[in-house]
Amino acid sequence: MRNILAVLTLALFSSSLADEGMWQPHQLPDLSDRLLELGLEIDPENLSSLDKFPMNAVVSLGGCSASFVSSQGLVVSNHHCVYGSVQYNSSPDNNLLVEGFLARQIEDEIRAAPGSRVYVTEEVTDVTDRAKDGITDGMSGILRYQVIENNRKQIIAECEESGIHRCGVSSFHQGLEYFLIKRLEIRDVRLVYVPATSIGKYGGDIDNWQWPRHTGDFGFYRAYVDSNGQPADYSEDNVPYQSDSFLEVSRSGVENGDFVMGVGYPGSTNRYRTGTEIENQFNWFYPNARQMREDIVSIINENSAPGSQARLAYENTIASLNNYAKNYQSMVESYQNSDFINRQNQFESDLDIWINSDDQRSDRYARSVLQLNALIENNQETKERDLVRSYMSYATLPNTAQRLYRLAIEKQKPDAAREPGYQERDMLRFRQSMQSISRRYDETVDKAILSYMLGHYAELPEQDRSQSLDAFYQIGSSFNQARTDQIIQDSYSNSTLADDETRLAWIEQTVEEFQASNDPFIQYAVASHDERMTLELAGKELGGQFQQWRPQYMEAVIAYNRSLGQPIYADANSSLRVTFGKVQGNEPKDGLVNLPFTTLEGILGKDTGLDPFNAPEQQLELIREGEYGDYALPSLGSVPVNFLADLDITGGNSGTAAMNSQAQLVGLLFDGVYESIIGDWDFDPAKNRAIAVDSRYMLWVMEYMDNATNLLEEMSIVD
Amino acid sequence: MRNILAVLTLALFSSSLADEGMWQPHQLPDLSDRLLELGLEIDPENLSSLDKFPMNAVVSLGGCSASFVSSQGLVVSNHHCVYGSVQYNSSPDNNLLVEGFLARQIEDEIRAAPGSRVYVTEEVTDVTDRAKDGITDGMSGILRYQVIENNRKQIIAECEESGIHRCGVSSFHQGLEYFLIKRLEIRDVRLVYVPATSIGKYGGDIDNWQWPRHTGDFGFYRAYVDSNGQPADYSEDNVPYQSDSFLEVSRSGVENGDFVMGVGYPGSTNRYRTGTEIENQFNWFYPNARQMREDIVSIINENSAPGSQARLAYENTIASLNNYAKNYQSMVESYQNSDFINRQNQFESDLDIWINSDDQRSDRYARSVLQLNALIENNQETKERDLVRSYMSYATLPNTAQRLYRLAIEKQKPDAAREPGYQERDMLRFRQSMQSISRRYDETVDKAILSYMLGHYAELPEQDRSQSLDAFYQIGSSFNQARTDQIIQDSYSNSTLADDETRLAWIEQTVEEFQASNDPFIQYAVASHDERMTLELAGKELGGQFQQWRPQYMEAVIAYNRSLGQPIYADANSSLRVTFGKVQGNEPKDGLVNLPFTTLEGILGKDTGLDPFNAPEQQLELIREGEYGDYALPSLGSVPVNFLADLDITGGNSGTAAMNSQAQLVGLLFDGVYESIIGDWDFDPAKNRAIAVDSRYMLWVMEYMDNATNLLEEMSIVD
Repeated sequence: MRNILAVLTLALFSSSLADEGMWQPHQLPDLSDRLLELGLEIDPENLSSLDKFPMNAVVSLGGCSASFVSSQGLVVSNHHCVYGSVQYNSSPDNNLLVEGFLARQIEDEIRAAPGSRVYVTEEVTDVTDRAKDGITDGMSGILRYQVIENNRKQIIAECEESGIHRCGVSSFHQGLEYFLIKRLEIRDVRLVYVPATSIGKYGGDIDNWQWPRHTGDFGFYRAYVDSNGQPADYSEDNVPYQSDSFLEVSRSGVENGDFVMGVGYPGSTNRYRTGTEIENQFNWFYPNARQMREDIVSIINENSAPGSQARLAYENTIASLNNYAKNYQSMVESYQNSDFINRQNQFESDLDIWINSDDQRSDRYARSVLQLNALIENNQETKERDLVRSYMSYATLPNTAQRLYRLAIEKQKPDAAREPGYQERDMLRFRQSMQSISRRYDETVDKAILSYMLGHYAELPEQDRSQSLDAFYQIGSSFNQARTDQIIQDSYSNSTLADDETRLAWIEQTVEEFQASNDPFIQYAVASHDERMTLELAGKELGGQFQQWRPQYMEAVIAYNRSLGQPIYADANSSLRVTFGKVQGNEPKDGLVNLPFTTLEGILGKDTGLDPFNAPEQQLELIREGEYGDYALPSLGSVPVNFLADLDITGGNSGTAAMNSQAQLVGLLFDGVYESIIGDWDFDPAKNRAIAVDSRYMLWVMEYMDNATNLLEEMSIVD
Repeated sequence: MRNILAVLTLALFSSSLADEGMWQPHQLPDLSDRLLELGLEIDPENLSSLDKFPMNAVVSLGGCSASFVSSQGLVVSNHHCVYGSVQYNSSPDNNLLVEGFLARQIEDEIRAAPGSRVYVTEEVTDVTDRAKDGITDGMSGILRYQVIENNRKQIIAECEESGIHRCGVSSFHQGLEYFLIKRLEIRDVRLVYVPATSIGKYGGDIDNWQWPRHTGDFGFYRAYVDSNGQPADYSEDNVPYQSDSFLEVSRSGVENGDFVMGVGYPGSTNRYRTGTEIENQFNWFYPNARQMREDIVSIINENSAPGSQARLAYENTIASLNNYAKNYQSMVESYQNSDFINRQNQFESDLDIWINSDDQRSDRYARSVLQLNALIENNQETKERDLVRSYMSYATLPNTAQRLYRLAIEKQKPDAAREPGYQERDMLRFRQSMQSISRRYDETVDKAILSYMLGHYAELPEQDRSQSLDAFYQIGSSFNQARTDQIIQDSYSNSTLADDETRLAWIEQTVEEFQASNDPFIQYAVASHDERMTLELAGKELGGQFQQWRPQYMEAVIAYNRSLGQPIYADANSSLRVTFGKVQGNEPKDGLVNLPFTTLEGILGKDTGLDPFNAPEQQLELIREGEYGDYALPSLGSVPVNFLADLDITGGNSGTAAMNSQAQLVGLLFDGVYESIIGDWDFDPAKNRAIAVDSRYMLWVMEYMDNATNLLEEMSIVD
């Protein structure tokens, strides 16, 4: 056992607070001083050029981040990012999930799951003017929404004319700016190597969001193109993609306090919401939604015996309900333990004073603040209704009927005019989701959930209720649960939607056939359709109005911060961002310290032999023997497994390369600590920590567990 | 927020391993060198004399430890040790649990709960020869058991002739030595002061066995005697007891790494069990008993709706089942993460070599090792049966019938000859327990538990089953759960034991009346009585045989250790012991550090406003204002609330004074960390930590929260 003295000495090196911010590359030269102060050794100017190292080594998998680590298109990301491809290639006879997978030569690499992509960002262009072309102040919300959507579609269509790019127009600062993002879309992606799940997913859901952590969350893809170097569908003739640059992999890794940065594709944050929105979210939405989730889990459990077919069918639903209940719980806890709302209210008060202390500023911004707040209040008026309606979809059968009828309606329109989710390109997934219903459905449970949700619904004031829903379930000023339950009972008895064949047949039916149906849930879907469309339209109108006022509010926020000399980063929106900081632990609670590194020995301590703490016996043996190879961190006395860094990340950053001061790969970001969950709203420099799998552990597993000699030779491993 | 740098600097001071051992005072002079090395500043010789300071300041409350902190009989212990007296004096109108209690003058002190005692240990005398007088090698186990019991009773009776002492003959080293312990029994005990439960029990069951901790676990009694200074029943004329010495209370407290010792009454440990016993306990007993506990909790939950009368009736049962399920779980986890069994096996192998390398030693000890192991194997043969039978008692109604019938049987004997629990002095408690059954009973739940336990019982091999039980529930080579459930059903329908009056009436009935009863459970109790007595007798026979061989085995263990120059402490047995070590945190898991102190600010971080994290608003306000008074630890930048020390404690040590190098009171021990639970079997110096409430926090609460000026003046508070 290493000495606690040494461990704590390590922890001492760093004590500065973390740097908040998910920066667009073009902003980095402005942050040069801080970058150099923290220890960056390459020219900060380089970080602003997408076509220079290291930016051009960074790619997206769509939902995950990744990096090239050889000149031959070898891509490294998280195990959980390539997991779908491992599942896809697994069979009872050849269980890659258990064994892992290694192609010892390039011919042995296997196709990734259908739809797997590697996106190389080639250009990011400001298209704000074009995106907003044609909008006027007096426009209705809906019209504004549609004008912007049409402009975006047009810009994207032009950009994608090459046939090999995937383009998007992303909103920055809540619609203040729009950037066209042009990505090379590599369509032939192959699985090269993943360790066993008992390494790559070690700790599983139990350790999710937790420190200490010992997860070997890494895996390798390779990007393939045709012989002309162009993206192409899978073909045996395809060849590895030659990237313009790639990351070297560090064998010596980082030490506590070292500079580290992450370049990846964070998905979404809410860092610029107003105090009213924040209070509503943390004091009302999260607690209520958490309660609703926990209630539904209880209902499922009470209505299905442990181990029964019914319980098994709901396992994923329960896991997902619990996962976000835990997420919301963390949000609330962190909020209550923080001064977030006070800081925000102080900021808004300062902003207000700044705006009103100058006539020109007042003319320009004062109204937008008022208008935005009015919209927010407007939006919150229906929050009870919106919450109830959104969780109503956990009652599968009525929800299925509505989706099927909506499809029949949408199919009356030309494909391009249909709602997203009901276009031809969505049909495969639509059908699959209709097929899979029977695997995650039980009538008793479904009825109980519907009964519970209708109980909540019945408590809504009349203006928030729906006439068709009231009529169908006989809910009015007085609510009789027994009467409604009887209607539920009868409806399920008389509906045939639970039958696979019947349900799938409805995909092809016409509106008229729906209208003639005797199925109670189809009848209800038809009867309530207009009301649902009215609500949807109202939502779009509100969305369009937000598109008018949020950008103006953000303009004020940015101008005010600029007056203070503080640069502002935009909320995450799945575009390429840079976060930088240091390797460091923290004090998550009074009296408790997270050390910056975990070690191989920690796996021995955690292992129970039972999933998810079931490391391969060979690994345990190597650790017991102290087989560290070249990968030990001397001050730690062992091989580091995972480390903490004060980087500012969120969902989508999974697989992001953690780079050292020379932009060498020293780890892969894959999670945050529990106290980071609130990071989507508020970055607390003392509490927020990203978790990375250490490059030394990756190399150790590759060398000692899996003998991935071919890859170790292909990559540039540096000291 | 204090700086993590400062915190970690603190943690650095100490890194030595902890000192295992619960030492009898007379052993301490032998440990002088180590005590002085660790920092003790008083003469270690003093620690060996019960009638000298500081030993004569230490008292027992019977189950808890305590200390005099003034010359006027003022006694300090844990909040949870005086909690019963707070409950006893609470009423809806005067809820001391919520408000706390402070007698501002001596006249306001109130009677502690009935049965409250302060025991002052006056003499400890070796009575081994007398205790063993009359035993011979050839004796049967039962006779040996009885001879020793009779000897003990006689020694105790002589000792208690004074009428004011409570005496006991305690076995040390598993019966190798016997000591007579003579304690002055002070019977008039009064409640002086406790903080509010939201301070004294802050964190409640959730924080039990946890670090970080913020519990103000302290409270004060006063011992009263008659005007002659003799113990007496409560009387208004009684006066405070004048103790020979008392502890000064330190305002400056301890710093990380400082010497600290605890003098108290640890209850029971198993540090000298054999490898066979250890493996059985951790690999078989704890996992199986934990599973049984969790199963019974599930059964209770499945058979009682949340919030129902039935569920409420089982709340305490559930809490207790869960509490020990958690305890056993920790045992198993710690065991799996340790090399305990390897160390033990190595020790036994070394011991074996030592014994057999010398003819004289071999003659003396070899047989005892063999005999002990044979006895242990013998004992383990019936482990499945013993486990099932012990948990069978969770089925209340059949168990109640057996207890009632046993009482009728025992009442046929003279009082002194009855089994403990059925003597006249036990009758009040027996009646109370029979009365309280209806408050913790539900027929549906009880039937379900019985059905579950009989399912386990039916799996036992025939020789482990009971003929009468088989016959009653129609269990044989083939088991039909439905048939047995029907018998259960019928038995409950036909039994009237659930009726309070009927049940209590049985307390007065004769054996003949039992034998004539139509109540199915009474009938079963009668029919199965002889079988139960046979098992009980076999247990006593085995116990007597252990009394022959365990002492000889321990003699070998001690002799072997002496040959290595290592003193041996006896297992805890509720007698006065000393543990010493240092204030220090630890690394409970790879990547995580427990700091040695928690702070006032940690209460702000933990507080949710909901029990058990509902500190008084006034306290939160004082902390927000940084009102530290004289009680801050400068290196910590705040008032320490709880601290960790590497002391070797167990149940019974609650309330033990943590003393500094000058034997001043610097805190009160009240719990251990989760990883300490296995400490009853194995002391891991890296993982085992005791938790103390800091004297500075006690004084802070007394001054700032409760204005306990009278007590602050009465005590000697020193810097």
